[in-house]
Amino acid sequence: MINVGIVGGTGYTGVELLRLLSRHGGARIKAVTSRKEAGMPVADMFPSLRGCVDVAFSSPDDSDLKQCDVVFFATPHGVAMAQARELLEAGVKVIDLAADFRLKDPEEFQKWYAMAHTCTDLLAEAVYGLPEVNREAIRKARLIGMAGCYPTSVQLGFKPLLDGGKKLIDTQTLIADCKSGVSGAGRKAEVGTLFAEAGDNFKAYGVKGHRHSPEMIQGLTAIHGAPVNLTFVPHLTPLIRGIHSTLYARILPEARDTDFQKLFEDCFANEPFVDVMPAGATPETRSVRGSNYARIAVHRPGNGDLLIILVVEDNLVKGASGQAVQVMNLMFGLPEQQGLDIVPLLP
Amino acid sequence: MINVGIVGGTGYTGVELLRLLSRHGGARIKAVTSRKEAGMPVADMFPSLRGCVDVAFSSPDDSDLKQCDVVFFATPHGVAMAQARELLEAGVKVIDLAADFRLKDPEEFQKWYAMAHTCTDLLAEAVYGLPEVNREAIRKARLIGMAGCYPTSVQLGFKPLLDGGKKLIDTQTLIADCKSGVSGAGRKAEVGTLFAEAGDNFKAYGVKGHRHSPEMIQGLTAIHGAPVNLTFVPHLTPLIRGIHSTLYARILPEARDTDFQKLFEDCFANEPFVDVMPAGATPETRSVRGSNYARIAVHRPGNGDLLIILVVEDNLVKGASGQAVQVMNLMFGLPEQQGLDIVPLLP
Amino acid sequence: MINVGIVGGTGYTGVELLRLLSRHGGARIKAVTSRKEAGMPVADMFPSLRGCVDVAFSSPDDSDLKQCDVVFFATPHGVAMAQARELLEAGVKVIDLAADFRLKDPEEFQKWYAMAHTCTDLLAEAVYGLPEVNREAIRKARLIGMAGCYPTSVQLGFKPLLDGGKKLIDTQTLIADCKSGVSGAGRKAEVGTLFAEAGDNFKAYGVKGHRHSPEMIQGLTAIHGAPVNLTFVPHLTPLIRGIHSTLYARILPEARDTDFQKLFEDCFANEPFVDVMPAGATPETRSVRGSNYARIAVHRPGNGDLLIILVVEDNLVKGASGQAVQVMNLMFGLPEQQGLDIVPLLP
Amino acid sequence: MINVGIVGGTGYTGVELLRLLSRHGGARIKAVTSRKEAGMPVADMFPSLRGCVDVAFSSPDDSDLKQCDVVFFATPHGVAMAQARELLEAGVKVIDLAADFRLKDPEEFQKWYAMAHTCTDLLAEAVYGLPEVNREAIRKARLIGMAGCYPTSVQLGFKPLLDGGKKLIDTQTLIADCKSGVSGAGRKAEVGTLFAEAGDNFKAYGVKGHRHSPEMIQGLTAIHGAPVNLTFVPHLTPLIRGIHSTLYARILPEARDTDFQKLFEDCFANEPFVDVMPAGATPETRSVRGSNYARIAVHRPGNGDLLIILVVEDNLVKGASGQAVQVMNLMFGLPEQQGLDIVPLLP
Repeated sequence: MINVGIVGGTGYTGVELLRLLSRHGGARIKAVTSRKEAGMPVADMFPSLRGCVDVAFSSPDDSDLKQCDVVFFATPHGVAMAQARELLEAGVKVIDLAADFRLKDPEEFQKWYAMAHTCTDLLAEAVYGLPEVNREAIRKARLIGMAGCYPTSVQLGFKPLLDGGKKLIDTQTLIADCKSGVSGAGRKAEVGTLFAEAGDNFKAYGVKGHRHSPEMIQGLTAIHGAPVNLTFVPHLTPLIRGIHSTLYARILPEARDTDFQKLFEDCFANEPFVDVMPAGATPETRSVRGSNYARIAVHRPGNGDLLIILVVEDNLVKGASGQAVQVMNLMFGLPEQQGLDIVPLLP
Repeated sequence: MINVGIVGGTGYTGVELLRLLSRHGGARIKAVTSRKEAGMPVADMFPSLRGCVDVAFSSPDDSDLKQCDVVFFATPHGVAMAQARELLEAGVKVIDLAADFRLKDPEEFQKWYAMAHTCTDLLAEAVYGLPEVNREAIRKARLIGMAGCYPTSVQLGFKPLLDGGKKLIDTQTLIADCKSGVSGAGRKAEVGTLFAEAGDNFKAYGVKGHRHSPEMIQGLTAIHGAPVNLTFVPHLTPLIRGIHSTLYARILPEARDTDFQKLFEDCFANEPFVDVMPAGATPETRSVRGSNYARIAVHRPGNGDLLIILVVEDNLVKGASGQAVQVMNLMFGLPEQQGLDIVPLLP
Repeated sequence: MINVGIVGGTGYTGVELLRLLSRHGGARIKAVTSRKEAGMPVADMFPSLRGCVDVAFSSPDDSDLKQCDVVFFATPHGVAMAQARELLEAGVKVIDLAADFRLKDPEEFQKWYAMAHTCTDLLAEAVYGLPEVNREAIRKARLIGMAGCYPTSVQLGFKPLLDGGKKLIDTQTLIADCKSGVSGAGRKAEVGTLFAEAGDNFKAYGVKGHRHSPEMIQGLTAIHGAPVNLTFVPHLTPLIRGIHSTLYARILPEARDTDFQKLFEDCFANEPFVDVMPAGATPETRSVRGSNYARIAVHRPGNGDLLIILVVEDNLVKGASGQAVQVMNLMFGLPEQQGLDIVPLLP
Repeated sequence: MINVGIVGGTGYTGVELLRLLSRHGGARIKAVTSRKEAGMPVADMFPSLRGCVDVAFSSPDDSDLKQCDVVFFATPHGVAMAQARELLEAGVKVIDLAADFRLKDPEEFQKWYAMAHTCTDLLAEAVYGLPEVNREAIRKARLIGMAGCYPTSVQLGFKPLLDGGKKLIDTQTLIADCKSGVSGAGRKAEVGTLFAEAGDNFKAYGVKGHRHSPEMIQGLTAIHGAPVNLTFVPHLTPLIRGIHSTLYARILPEARDTDFQKLFEDCFANEPFVDVMPAGATPETRSVRGSNYARIAVHRPGNGDLLIILVVEDNLVKGASGQAVQVMNLMFGLPEQQGLDIVPLLP
C-alpha cells in the first residue's frame, strides 16, 4: 500500500483525490492537510464522503507528510514550490496539481503567476504530468508538475498531428476555442462564479492572455520538436464539470491525402484513457463525467483544408485529480488504470 | 418626476431597481451610491444596463440623497437604520428593502439580526411594505420596511384564509415549505452559493430557525387579528430567480363546506399583481420571471381537511424591488402598476 | 457469476443498471433488449459506456432471457406483467423497476395506471423491493416489485417513527413535500421536461393525486401495522438527479420526551446505505449523487410538536437501479454492498 | 394601430412575439393560429401571458389573416411558403421567421431543408430581414425572410470587416465557433433537448454541415460584394436563451495598422441595437437576456494577425422575434425601437 498525503484537501481537486483514492485499492490516505480546518473530519466538509473517507484534516505542521510515499499538492500556486524540496529530500515523491512545476522557463512562470520561482533547480528536474506524452519520464520521476485542465485537452487533441515533427498542419495558426465548466475556477468565494452569475450565462474570458496559453505552446512545441503557435480562447459555460475543446488546424497542401481518422486512431490505439470516436461523432462532456477518459473526434468539413478536433474531458478527473492518480500509478509501477476504472455518470 | 436615490446599488435588488426605474416614466434616478465603486458607471458593473442607465455610482458622502423625493435602501441590514432619520427629517421618504423596519419588536430584531435597533421610534412609525395587506397605510407613510421575499409569498398565500379573523383553518399548525432561487442569497462572494455548489443540488437550510419566520408570524397575526403559528422550512433550489411556497393548513370542521377557490378569487379580485389561477392549476416560477406578479393556486386533495396553497413569485421583483416600486407608486399617488407592466420572460 | 438480462435498456434506469452491473464483479450482462434498437451496441446510444460495456441491444424475441439467472425490467408499466410468468416458470428471478408489482390491490393498480392487472396471482406473491423494510422476504423471493423513487425516500424517512406499531406521531396527518430532479420523468420525448421548460423553473405537479401516493400509504401502513394516512405533494426541480423529501409529522403528546435523533440512529445503525446525519444537519442531494446512499436528518424546531425529516437520495440509484442491484445481491446471497461501493460525485 | 396575425403561436418564437407585441403600443394582435389548439386561450398554454394577452388560438382556416396588416410566420419551415402568396395578394405584408425566404438559391434551399421551393418568384422578391445590413430594402418590402439566429450574430460580427469590399481580412478562412442555448432548438418534444440530456452537458453538433452555413456565406458575400468562405461549428450549451459567437479572422498584411476597435465603433455608431463594447471587454449572454441588443467586442491578442470577435445576442429576441418586430417597425414607418425598449434581465 502506498502511503499518500494530500496538501490542501478543501478544494475541488482535493475532494476529487479523496474520492478516487478511497477506492483505489493500492493507496492509503495518511494525511490530508488544511491549516484552517485542522481537526475537522473531511466528511464534515464534504458529506459526500461520509462512510467512505474517515480521515480528518491535519495541520500542515503536525502532519507526517514525510512519512508518506507520495504527496499531492492540491493547493494554490506557490505552495508546492515552498515545500517540495524538503519532501523530496526525505525521499517522498511529489505530484503538484498546481502550476509551480509546469512552465520550464522561470521568467514565464513569474510573468503569468506574479511570483518569483524559488526552486529553479527542481523546476528543471520536474517532469510534466501528461502520460500520453511523457509516460516513460513519469515512471522514473520523483517530482511531477501535472498538466493543467485546458492544456491536457488541447495537447491530446493536437498530438497526432504534431508528434515526431510531422508535417501535416500549419503549426503557426492553431486555434483552441475551449469551454470549461465552473468547477475549473475552484472552490473559492468569488462573485463571478456564483450560481446567479454563472448560471444561464455564457462568456469568453482571458482573451488577452491566459496562463494556460504558454503551457500549451510549451507542450505542443515539445511534442512537435519545433516551435508551434496557438491562439487560445477560454469560455465559461454553465456546467459543473467538463471541458470541451474545439481545435482548428489548417492542413498543409502536401498532407491533403492523409487519413486523419486513422491517424488519430493509431496514435491512441494503446491509450487506456483516450477514446477516439468514430468518424462523424460529436463527443459530449457528460460522456466522461466523473471518469478519467478523454474522448476525441476529428472532422474535416467538405474534405477541405480545415481540420476540426473536438475533445472532451472531465476537468477535475482527466484534467486534474484522475490524471494525477494515473501518474501516481506510473510512478509506483502499479497498473495504470488502477482506481480509475470508473464508468462515467450519465445522465 | 419623482427624484429617486438608491443606497447600495451593487447588489441584485439594486440592479433590479435600476432596471425597473429606468423604464418607469414617472421617476428619475438621481443618485446610486456605493462607497466602494464611487465614480464607476453602473453599466460598467452591470453591462445589461448599457444604453439603458447612464448614471454612475456616487459616494454616499457626496450624494445629494437629501435632494431626492424618495430613497431606497438596497443594502445589508443595519444601514437604513443608521441613515433614515436624517433623510426623513429632510423630507425624504424612505423605503428599506432590508430588514431594519420589518420586525416591530426591537428585541426580536436584535435576536435575529444580531444588532441592537438604534431608532425604535422610527420602527414604531414604519409601515410594513405589503400592499395587498397595508395599502392605505402605505399611501400615507413616509418610512417603509419592505416585506421580505419569502414572507411576501407566505402572507399572500394565507391571507384569504385568515384576514378579518376568519375561522376557517387551524391557525396554530400552519406549515410553509418554501423553495428559493439562489439570487435570494444576494450578490455576495460565498462558497455555498457558487455555481459548482448550488448547481444540480437541492437542500433545506435554516430549519432550526430563519429570520423570516418571526416576520411571517408577525404579519399573519396582524392579518388575522389573533395569534397565528407557523413552521417555516426554506430550501435552496438551483434556479436563479423565483420562490415557490407550498403552504399547508388544516381546515376547521366548521369550515368544511367553504368554496376555497372562490374565497381566494374574491380576496384578490381587485389586486393588480396577484393572480389566482383556475382550480387544479400548478403555478410555475418562470411564469412570473422578471415580473411583479404572484400567482396562487389552492388545492384540497380528495376534498379532505388539508388545504395546499401554491404561491410563486420572482423573489427579486414581487419579493423585493418590484414591490418596492409598487409601494413608491402608492406613496406618491401614481398608478399602482406604473413601471411594472412587464410581461414575464418565458422561456 | 450471475447471468443478468435487462429488458428495456434505453431509458435512464436501464443505462444506470448497465453502469452499476458493468463494475459489479459478480454479475455478467448477458442480454439487454430493445425492440427498436436491436443490433445497436449500447455504447452507441450511451457513449458514456464506450470502453465499459460492449454488449449490443438484442430483440426481445431473440434474446435468451430464459437463460439468465435474473431479469430486470427497466420498462414502462405493463411490460413486466406480460412477461414475468414465462420467465419465472423457466426458473428466472424477476426484478421489476416499474410499478406492475408494487400495489397489492389490483383495483388500485388499475385506477392509477389505467390498465387491468393481468397476473394477480403473481402480484400476490411479489415482494416489495425495499430492503430496509423487507430484507428477509427479499432474500427468499423470486419476483420483486421495486419500490418507487419517491416512496423509497418517504418510507425510509417515516420508518423509525412508525415501525412495529409505535405510538409516536399522529399517523393520520403525515405530509410528504417532495422535490425530484427531472430524470425521474424518464428518457421520453416530452415538452414538459425539455431543458428550456424545466430549466430555471420550479413547480408542483400531481397535487390532486399521484401514483406514488397509494404506494406510500400501502408501505407505511405495512410498516406501522395499522392504517396510516399521508398527503403527498411532488415538485419538479431543475436538477438532473436527486430527490429531496421534506416530511412533516405531529408528535403525540405522550411521545414528547422521545430522543428522536437517537431513535433514527438506532433504527438504521446496521443499514449499509442509510446515513442518519448528526443533529442539525441538512442533507443535500449532491451528497448522494451517483451512489446508493440515502441520507436522513431529523429536526424538531423549538422542541415543539412538529417533526421535520429531511431525506435525500439519488432517484436513479437508491430510488431505482442501485436499490435493484442491492435487491439482486440479497436474492443471490451476495454481499449486500457488492457493486454499490461508489463514492458520490461532488461537485 | 397595425393589425397583426401570427401563424404558429405555440413555439418559442411565437410566445416571444406575443410578449413583445402585447406591450408594443402600435400593434394589435388580431389572430394567433394553431390548428391543434384552436379555441384555447394562449394564456392557458403560456401562463406567463395571463393578464397580459387575452387572445385565443384560432384555426388557420377560420382566421381572418387577410384582414391583418402583417402576418408573422413562427412556424416550421415550409409553412410560410405555402401561404404567403395568398396573403400578399390580399395586401398583407409577410414576415417569415423560418427559413423559407432566406436562401436565394432554390437548389440550396432544397438541399438543406429537404423540400422543393414552391414559390421561387416570391423568393426572388423577398428581402432578407437583417436591418443593420438591409434597412432601406426592408422599409419598402412586403415579404421578409428573417435572418436566422446564428447568422444574425455572425453577420453582425463580421460586417465591419467586410462591408463595401474592404480588404482587411482573409475572407476565405473565416471561422465561426458558435454556442447556443437550448431554446434555439424550439419547443418540440425531442430526447436530445430534455433537461436530463442537455443539462450539465456541452457538445458540438452539425459539424459536417449546418443549414445556417449557406445562409451565413450568402449574407457575408452580399455584405462584402465578393465571395467569402467560412467554417461554422455550432455547439449546444446548457443555457435557456443566448447565443455567443466567437469569430476568427486573419488580418491581411496590408491591414495591420487598422484600428479595429474604432472600425467597429464607427460601423455601428448609429445602430440602436448593436453595442460595441470597450476594448478588452468580454460580453456575456445574460447581458442581453430578453432584449433586442447584440453586444460585440473585438480582440487582437498580442497585436498579432488574428482577430477575435465576440458577439452575444438573445436567440429568441435579436435572433428571432425581436428582430422581426424591429423589421415590422421599419416596414410600417414606426420608430425602429418601438416595443423593443426593454432592459435585459440580470441576473
